[in-house]
Amino acid sequence: MIVVMRPGVTQEEIQSVISRLEREGFKTHLSEGVERTIIGAIGDKTRLRDENLAVMPGVEKVVPILHPYKLAGRDFHPEDSVIKIGDMTIGGPQIQIIAGPCAVESRSLLLEVANAVKEAGATMLRGGAFKPRTSPYSFQGLADKGLELLAEAREVSGLPIITEVIDQSSVDAVAEVADILQIGSRNMHNYPLLQAVGRQSKPVMLKRGLSATFEEWLLAAEYILKEGNSKVILCERGIRTFESYTRNTLDLSAVPAIKSLSHLPIFVDPSHGTGRRYMVAPMGRAALAAGADGLIIEVHPNPEEALSDGSQSLTPEQFAQLVKEIKPIISATGREL
Amino acid sequence: MIVVMRPGVTQEEIQSVISRLEREGFKTHLSEGVERTIIGAIGDKTRLRDENLAVMPGVEKVVPILHPYKLAGRDFHPEDSVIKIGDMTIGGPQIQIIAGPCAVESRSLLLEVANAVKEAGATMLRGGAFKPRTSPYSFQGLADKGLELLAEAREVSGLPIITEVIDQSSVDAVAEVADILQIGSRNMHNYPLLQAVGRQSKPVMLKRGLSATFEEWLLAAEYILKEGNSKVILCERGIRTFESYTRNTLDLSAVPAIKSLSHLPIFVDPSHGTGRRYMVAPMGRAALAAGADGLIIEVHPNPEEALSDGSQSLTPEQFAQLVKEIKPIISATGREL
Amino acid sequence: MIVVMRPGVTQEEIQSVISRLEREGFKTHLSEGVERTIIGAIGDKTRLRDENLAVMPGVEKVVPILHPYKLAGRDFHPEDSVIKIGDMTIGGPQIQIIAGPCAVESRSLLLEVANAVKEAGATMLRGGAFKPRTSPYSFQGLADKGLELLAEAREVSGLPIITEVIDQSSVDAVAEVADILQIGSRNMHNYPLLQAVGRQSKPVMLKRGLSATFEEWLLAAEYILKEGNSKVILCERGIRTFESYTRNTLDLSAVPAIKSLSHLPIFVDPSHGTGRRYMVAPMGRAALAAGADGLIIEVHPNPEEALSDGSQSLTPEQFAQLVKEIKPIISATGREL
Amino acid sequence: MIVVMRPGVTQEEIQSVISRLEREGFKTHLSEGVERTIIGAIGDKTRLRDENLAVMPGVEKVVPILHPYKLAGRDFHPEDSVIKIGDMTIGGPQIQIIAGPCAVESRSLLLEVANAVKEAGATMLRGGAFKPRTSPYSFQGLADKGLELLAEAREVSGLPIITEVIDQSSVDAVAEVADILQIGSRNMHNYPLLQAVGRQSKPVMLKRGLSATFEEWLLAAEYILKEGNSKVILCERGIRTFESYTRNTLDLSAVPAIKSLSHLPIFVDPSHGTGRRYMVAPMGRAALAAGADGLIIEVHPNPEEALSDGSQSLTPEQFAQLVKEIKPIISATGREL
Repeated sequence: MIVVMRPGVTQEEIQSVISRLEREGFKTHLSEGVERTIIGAIGDKTRLRDENLAVMPGVEKVVPILHPYKLAGRDFHPEDSVIKIGDMTIGGPQIQIIAGPCAVESRSLLLEVANAVKEAGATMLRGGAFKPRTSPYSFQGLADKGLELLAEAREVSGLPIITEVIDQSSVDAVAEVADILQIGSRNMHNYPLLQAVGRQSKPVMLKRGLSATFEEWLLAAEYILKEGNSKVILCERGIRTFESYTRNTLDLSAVPAIKSLSHLPIFVDPSHGTGRRYMVAPMGRAALAAGADGLIIEVHPNPEEALSDGSQSLTPEQFAQLVKEIKPIISATGREL
Repeated sequence: MIVVMRPGVTQEEIQSVISRLEREGFKTHLSEGVERTIIGAIGDKTRLRDENLAVMPGVEKVVPILHPYKLAGRDFHPEDSVIKIGDMTIGGPQIQIIAGPCAVESRSLLLEVANAVKEAGATMLRGGAFKPRTSPYSFQGLADKGLELLAEAREVSGLPIITEVIDQSSVDAVAEVADILQIGSRNMHNYPLLQAVGRQSKPVMLKRGLSATFEEWLLAAEYILKEGNSKVILCERGIRTFESYTRNTLDLSAVPAIKSLSHLPIFVDPSHGTGRRYMVAPMGRAALAAGADGLIIEVHPNPEEALSDGSQSLTPEQFAQLVKEIKPIISATGREL
Repeated sequence: MIVVMRPGVTQEEIQSVISRLEREGFKTHLSEGVERTIIGAIGDKTRLRDENLAVMPGVEKVVPILHPYKLAGRDFHPEDSVIKIGDMTIGGPQIQIIAGPCAVESRSLLLEVANAVKEAGATMLRGGAFKPRTSPYSFQGLADKGLELLAEAREVSGLPIITEVIDQSSVDAVAEVADILQIGSRNMHNYPLLQAVGRQSKPVMLKRGLSATFEEWLLAAEYILKEGNSKVILCERGIRTFESYTRNTLDLSAVPAIKSLSHLPIFVDPSHGTGRRYMVAPMGRAALAAGADGLIIEVHPNPEEALSDGSQSLTPEQFAQLVKEIKPIISATGREL
Repeated sequence: MIVVMRPGVTQEEIQSVISRLEREGFKTHLSEGVERTIIGAIGDKTRLRDENLAVMPGVEKVVPILHPYKLAGRDFHPEDSVIKIGDMTIGGPQIQIIAGPCAVESRSLLLEVANAVKEAGATMLRGGAFKPRTSPYSFQGLADKGLELLAEAREVSGLPIITEVIDQSSVDAVAEVADILQIGSRNMHNYPLLQAVGRQSKPVMLKRGLSATFEEWLLAAEYILKEGNSKVILCERGIRTFESYTRNTLDLSAVPAIKSLSHLPIFVDPSHGTGRRYMVAPMGRAALAAGADGLIIEVHPNPEEALSDGSQSLTPEQFAQLVKEIKPIISATGREL
């Protein structure tokens, strides 16, 4: 790390910082410029916090040099991670399209959607049994009954299942049914939950927090990886900005950024990322053109009656049209559906 | 709610929306302007989601009229809530000053700080036993051992205790020791945890999420209130903006906003809200001048060695100075410490 | 507009709002619900400000119904605007690719880039003669000399020219040389400048302000259109968010949003929009997949020596590669270069 | 500056960066750690841009060490600037309270407000003759006629005048009438205008841009100072965030931040900063408690009829009450009105 001293710093203050660093095992180098004195320090960063140095007398700021994540970064894992789910691969040349209703509402609806999206070209089925809702008065999901229906939908349609887990106590139950466990945006900072999904073996899709930086997101992935589960898929789903016309601002620069910083696969959710049905197809095309490994899309046969997120759900016909539109984009980027 | 129809809407589309509304028990009123037709609807909003109407053919947008929270709002609870903790009151004329280390690090440190802040004028002790940290490599707290030390510090100092709870499984253990349970910023959207603290009887301090609107924050409070626990204290602790000089942007307009929208008490945390030690006193003074019911301040005898948040911690001497500075502000607003 | 009254409003307060509205020529409709009374008002909005009603006794809030822009919106201009520049069209099936250096630095550099980007497939040349720079110590452009060089580059390369105008006094000089006048992000709210470019006849590319909503951006376009210049092209170039890894957050949802709200063409600037060279190609592909009418890209033969924005400039070779990559995307969306 | 090289960097790449730096007159120091090699460089930063180094092969990032502003910063001007306007001082122990209507609407209104705010305790009069409005259909101000009325109001009331200048062509006319020229938030990045007010001799109040960082704001001040005008007053007026309940988010941490980074005085505008009348008094109190040098407040005798910003204007009675409330706060901070 680099320690920048204030103008007018004394020799005692400088010496005191150097002693502190050397006591913790750092090698230091002092560089005295006309306007600022800086101290470079090389060593094991986990033994000393930037903030401890930052409050020492005479210190102006401390500049970190290394990324704070190790397992999620490319430094020690330069090649892309490819995750296998049955015959499917995630993060390789294959693009995966996940589709399904926001919430599992009923058996008939789920089976209808499962069959419709499969026919249209989806390769995986989504559906929420546990729903984290902003208002306590909103539909909170069918819970265990929802998991049963998802298991049936998988059997009937042959599609692998992804569904969200919202607390530690249901990780095992969800992991029994799901092929991928989803950690939603609201839980990206729920560290006990991240550790819990890190201790089971199913792949985990980690959605970006509403206001999480790339670095914080990769540190959340690090929580899962550190527990031993290497099968982490990231999913950009929009961040919160001042623009209120869209539900969130879908940050597609996350795709090249994550590809550069990390070896983990990255998906995009244009449904939550925009909150507006008419934007799902163009932003889905854009995500794949930017290099995303897959999409996750909300589909509901009757969005007017949906118990959750109706305004961003496609009908099965609209989803079939979207698949038709993304195929040439996928080819154009040298990948395959 | 108000349903605004698109230009060029057909009579069938209008009729279809009206029928839908009436089927759900709403009374409707049609108003046809030159540029837009709008449909007013009066009835029980919980039976129909805005988003379901929003996707009906011909609909441009749906405008909600009522606040989505009931128990947290002033409509049905116009007078201020005052919460009692022993002899202390929160939300009345008394101002409460909570102080202590970010994390409980050791017995000696905790007792030293407890005595120092008490002497300086603090009325309650803070300290984290369970620490939600952005990096898995950071100090995660002493857990149960930390709770024991907090219990001892209360006995020794006579100060009531506030400490954070980060998952459902430790709610009971924390509630046994703490006088107030804190829900941290990262867990404001952790609904199962909100419900769990809503089902126990100790007061809860609910910190504002990093990018939560006032409405979302009050809906989070609603989750707790709805379970039967009416003793909710809100705490503004800074929101995430583009400005990176401060750790967060402390939004003091939250104080008059919450006082206007809700009957719940509101505290301010200028330590996390700024992330910079030299700002804690001026922003603490400002918070009280704006009408806050109390402050929560990080104090550490040796911030250079703190295991968490050293750069925003005051020394006991700096805290004593802060108390001296806020006293005339408190008097100026007609309240008392 | 809709006026929502507070709970407990009196009949006098309601009557007073209605009288005020009717005095201004509005037709009103009163709707008294259990929890709120609302007053609908139909009439010419320009005669009364929402905010004047908002401060009347008993009023809780005022909800506008119509878009505040008329000329920029689709309501009265449903078909896409297509702008002609010589043989080229903007906003029709043709995609335009604008390329060139951030700043005009010298004759030789400009001519070298002009020829290189033309050969690689660019259809228009960019280059700044007047540079608005955050620091007064940064290179501020060659000014009039830069305009002369741009005129020469057009003659030599045959490419039309786009360049920025930063104050009213140079509008005429810039309009003499440029085929398109650019209003930069920092000047989107500079209304006297918008009016000045609205009073000349060359097309104007209006970049989105750093923190402008779609509505504010379209209102800025309205300033130009209202002066009589209908040839306005919008350009998304990234907005300011909490994420600092990218220079700005490129908001590609602007593409479908503007296509839905407005008839004006929309370009995307992935150079400023990301600030990172390696992101320009993927975000350029994504922009076109989302439906943008064109791209504007910074190209410099030697980014290490660029006087402005080196870190986001492509070399001519990288630009040629980008053109190769976007061609199949353009075909996939049914358009042509 | 510090240049951080990528993992796997070659000796040639390192040498190439060092040569480049030395060619530009920098002294360099090489530090090779296990995971990263870093190069420290000491010299005149204005000769080389970070971004030029950032694109050199092998470079991961460039970290600046010095503040980019010189004249606005405390490094070379440690003591507070105090600005004199007649008998008044700004930035010393005296607090100044500026009040008046958003826009100059008519002679009678302006004189009425001028007398009322003077009597209530205001020390300066505000009022806009040129109004930058988001919509071209909004009232744009009385222009030169407004300036005449301001001159008359000064004579009648004896209060000094502050009014906004929105383009270069009217700087002279405004400077003839105004005691302080205001640069509004939308023009903080209008560099030709900043230079123009820097070349005249009246004090300038520079409002913070809607999404400007402290650093960008101080760089805007630097544009004025660099032209020779040292009388710059900063004014925090709210920033744009995701929260839409308030018109802007008033960032009071700007007060201690600017006091720490700069020697310039800082005011706060709680009217624009909140957009809600009921918040003006509490946020005004808070601003002074945080250490602001003054307030600027919108006052209108009849906000229901105001041509601009009615919803955030105080009546003269409310303003008189505000002055009463801030007096004890001012005393509590050891200053005087």
